[in-house]
Amino acid sequence: MIPAPEVSARPTAPGAVFDWLDEAAELRARAGLTRTLRSRPAEDPVLDLASNDYLGLTHHPVVTGAAAEAARRWGGGSTGSRLVTGTTALHTELEAELADFYGVEAALVFSSGYAANLAALTALTDPDTLIVSDAYNHASLIDGCRLSRSRVHRAAHASPEAVATALAERAQPRALVVSDTVFSVDGNAAPIAGLSAAARAHGAALLVDDAHGLGVLGPGGRGAPAAVGLTGAPDVVATATLSKSLGSQGGVVFGPQRVIRHLVETARTFIFDTGLAPAAVGAALGALRLLRAEPQRAERAREVARTLAAELTTAGLRASDPDAAVVSVRAAGPEQAVAWRDACRDAGLAVGCFRPPSVPDGYSRLRLTARADLTQQQITQAVRTLVRTRPQA
Amino acid sequence: MIPAPEVSARPTAPGAVFDWLDEAAELRARAGLTRTLRSRPAEDPVLDLASNDYLGLTHHPVVTGAAAEAARRWGGGSTGSRLVTGTTALHTELEAELADFYGVEAALVFSSGYAANLAALTALTDPDTLIVSDAYNHASLIDGCRLSRSRVHRAAHASPEAVATALAERAQPRALVVSDTVFSVDGNAAPIAGLSAAARAHGAALLVDDAHGLGVLGPGGRGAPAAVGLTGAPDVVATATLSKSLGSQGGVVFGPQRVIRHLVETARTFIFDTGLAPAAVGAALGALRLLRAEPQRAERAREVARTLAAELTTAGLRASDPDAAVVSVRAAGPEQAVAWRDACRDAGLAVGCFRPPSVPDGYSRLRLTARADLTQQQITQAVRTLVRTRPQA
Repeated sequence: MIPAPEVSARPTAPGAVFDWLDEAAELRARAGLTRTLRSRPAEDPVLDLASNDYLGLTHHPVVTGAAAEAARRWGGGSTGSRLVTGTTALHTELEAELADFYGVEAALVFSSGYAANLAALTALTDPDTLIVSDAYNHASLIDGCRLSRSRVHRAAHASPEAVATALAERAQPRALVVSDTVFSVDGNAAPIAGLSAAARAHGAALLVDDAHGLGVLGPGGRGAPAAVGLTGAPDVVATATLSKSLGSQGGVVFGPQRVIRHLVETARTFIFDTGLAPAAVGAALGALRLLRAEPQRAERAREVARTLAAELTTAGLRASDPDAAVVSVRAAGPEQAVAWRDACRDAGLAVGCFRPPSVPDGYSRLRLTARADLTQQQITQAVRTLVRTRPQA
Repeated sequence: MIPAPEVSARPTAPGAVFDWLDEAAELRARAGLTRTLRSRPAEDPVLDLASNDYLGLTHHPVVTGAAAEAARRWGGGSTGSRLVTGTTALHTELEAELADFYGVEAALVFSSGYAANLAALTALTDPDTLIVSDAYNHASLIDGCRLSRSRVHRAAHASPEAVATALAERAQPRALVVSDTVFSVDGNAAPIAGLSAAARAHGAALLVDDAHGLGVLGPGGRGAPAAVGLTGAPDVVATATLSKSLGSQGGVVFGPQRVIRHLVETARTFIFDTGLAPAAVGAALGALRLLRAEPQRAERAREVARTLAAELTTAGLRASDPDAAVVSVRAAGPEQAVAWRDACRDAGLAVGCFRPPSVPDGYSRLRLTARADLTQQQITQAVRTLVRTRPQA
């Protein structure tokens, strides 16, 4: 028997420790899953139906002016974590106005919606809690589940019945039902009234991520809970971003005072993160005040979405039925989706593109966002471009 | 035998699902671990030795002006995730200048240092990787370890020997050694030259969190790797924040091009998070250019720390020996630390306060940061206040 040659188990050149990253990149390339960063210019001539700027407030002079003023007055950053030096009076002002607008006892601002979701999921659960999480939930909710010390049950998408069954069969004394209010990819709304009823019937709390609902759903954009009469419910916690309808950056948790106090005192992504920059606080405050003064912006975003979907359907495309400000259009496959997105961009239209594994149901599609400030002419232009650039299946 | 009364296992009033939060708050209060948010005014008369504004750039007109200009030009937010609409030309400019300054092939900006650490730890590891993590690492590194799918070995603090042993004994083909470069609480530096040697000897990569080193350590503040000749090493990845020395908000990962590409294509906290707001990008860029123009700021921050520690020691307090811009002062216990911090604030001096469980070694202390723009008079004032307000043990 010939002995096997001695093989060093360890790479020899220092850089060899990252050789596997090239192999992984090669595998992604072969699967058509390469992603490329592409920067946009300040004066972008492209028609934007790809951003999450639902109310068209990101570039509103009131919003950018408030950001600029906050930076000049309060500094380029918040200088520390929220419990040390990172809470300015401007943060407190924003939190009070957000809570008042959303109709809850208290609100707590984070540096991102991702951080807000990690905070809510880890702080409001423990090993005695069962988390019942919608199968299509956002990555940040899934990561929050993974960071929690709880058992996680992945429930069928948008199914209060599935949630009720999981809750009824649980062994844990506590439970938390978790769902997006509007699912990012297709823009469909979760049945949160049903989820709330199921949670209540089984002594569970409800956590909803209203990132795509705040500013779009409910009276004057007060969000998904307000749309179904759950405003200020004592067993509901909502999270949202300041980076979509509010044209800024950051995340927020809305809830009863005792929930917010618990987050302040225990949530790691609150305690160990630098506070949100003053400019982002100022921008969000400016946008919130604009939305209160012009509540029709919320309805207009939904109307643009419905018009867009209707015209796409009339033109023979498979558009989703929008519950909020997102419309998706089915593509034949992942390559076709990418080619379609690229052809749109070449034709002056920016749209999003979702493919597996980013979509849980396996269907590739384009994602269009219906900004409140789109004109009928722009909607028509977008539909024409989508029809003209549609790849042959 | 008398049957036990029927007890409902489920709370009846909806709000009762959060009753346990009040019980948890009561337990924290009894343990003296209540934390309270306190906001600061724009014109704060207090002498700040609590923030992480190491170079004193947060309020520099170049930094705040750059933030304001970026908000006006690019909008209040970045409007989407980095791979969709959230990468502006300003992001690309900042990433190129950061990479050039740090001496690496590429840099990638995140919405926070927390997100950057979660990204690096989850994307650069897999079930075939052993993570060897310093026992005193920051919460965001620990959470990154928990989110990874790797086995995690918690190594003795600041011990290349312990790291080498863990690496030698591992069963996994890959390994990642993880450490802060400067530990936040005491300001002591990690032995990263020794950690790098241990990692190389055992075919492991090294990930260092340079949040408290960037802008303070190395030539002109180029960071901890530059200080020990590891600039641009092919097996080293560094993370940092834009919210400390650079006076802004956000996080960054520095490394070889293939590492950055891998993060762009696979890191969940990069892909599924909104891009950093333009104002924060602008502020960081302004601060970075200031630091390049005035490299003496880095040395000055270290000098202030050494002076502060020396004067505190001379005055009879137990100050740490600072390797960067942080000095800690030992308190007799948690209550004394809180009382001391509060007495300082009443006397016009802001300092941080760390108690268990936030400190891994169990010692309560005050944490002082040595800003580069502190004058000798302010240092003397701070020392006098600390001596005068020291609680009796």
